[in-house]
Amino acid sequence: MDNHYDSYFHALADPTRRAVVARLAQGPAAVSELHAPHAMALPTFLKHLKVLESSGLVRSEKKGRVRTVHIEALPLAEAENWISQQRQIWSRRLDRLQTLAEQSPSPTKEPSP
Amino acid sequence: MDNHYDSYFHALADPTRRAVVARLAQGPAAVSELHAPHAMALPTFLKHLKVLESSGLVRSEKKGRVRTVHIEALPLAEAENWISQQRQIWSRRLDRLQTLAEQSPSPTKEPSP
Repeated sequence: MDNHYDSYFHALADPTRRAVVARLAQGPAAVSELHAPHAMALPTFLKHLKVLESSGLVRSEKKGRVRTVHIEALPLAEAENWISQQRQIWSRRLDRLQTLAEQSPSPTKEPSP
Repeated sequence: MDNHYDSYFHALADPTRRAVVARLAQGPAAVSELHAPHAMALPTFLKHLKVLESSGLVRSEKKGRVRTVHIEALPLAEAENWISQQRQIWSRRLDRLQTLAEQSPSPTKEPSP
């Protein structure tokens, strides 16, 4: 499982690969369409696509001469959930600290004897 | 901004660094305490800590001889939100496709002339 997260986050740690994920969130696309906005040689772009596909975040299918790439929802959800869980743990801790601070009697409110 | 995401996701693409983030979600900790569960030399561990701190996901403060590490909530939220946004776009697209499928008249329901 840990290896999955390694490859999810590694795949997302690059602007070209994030742009591909953002484009695919709007729907499947052919490799040529995905490549078009990026000022890089096709082989370089294909390497980025391979990193994304190896991570499981996207998958591709070839029909005839056209390879179409899709997003995979589950791995994206797993990556999001990992971060989300840490944030929730951290957030609950802050809430507990605040409650404790509110419950403890304020020394200034105590009447002097 | 794109560079931030590069460093957030790069920082999270390693099991040791994710373990540190998960530990810090429960509260601040001294470097020695963070290092203890990891079977690696301190200099190697400190490199991981440096990657996390450079990304902005954590920060540390030295008081006397003890360096204490804290999580930073905002960068973690930014990383989560990036993935969350893509998932929402993808999810809304699926919803639209489903609505379209439900609205289009089914050929089997049409009465024969």
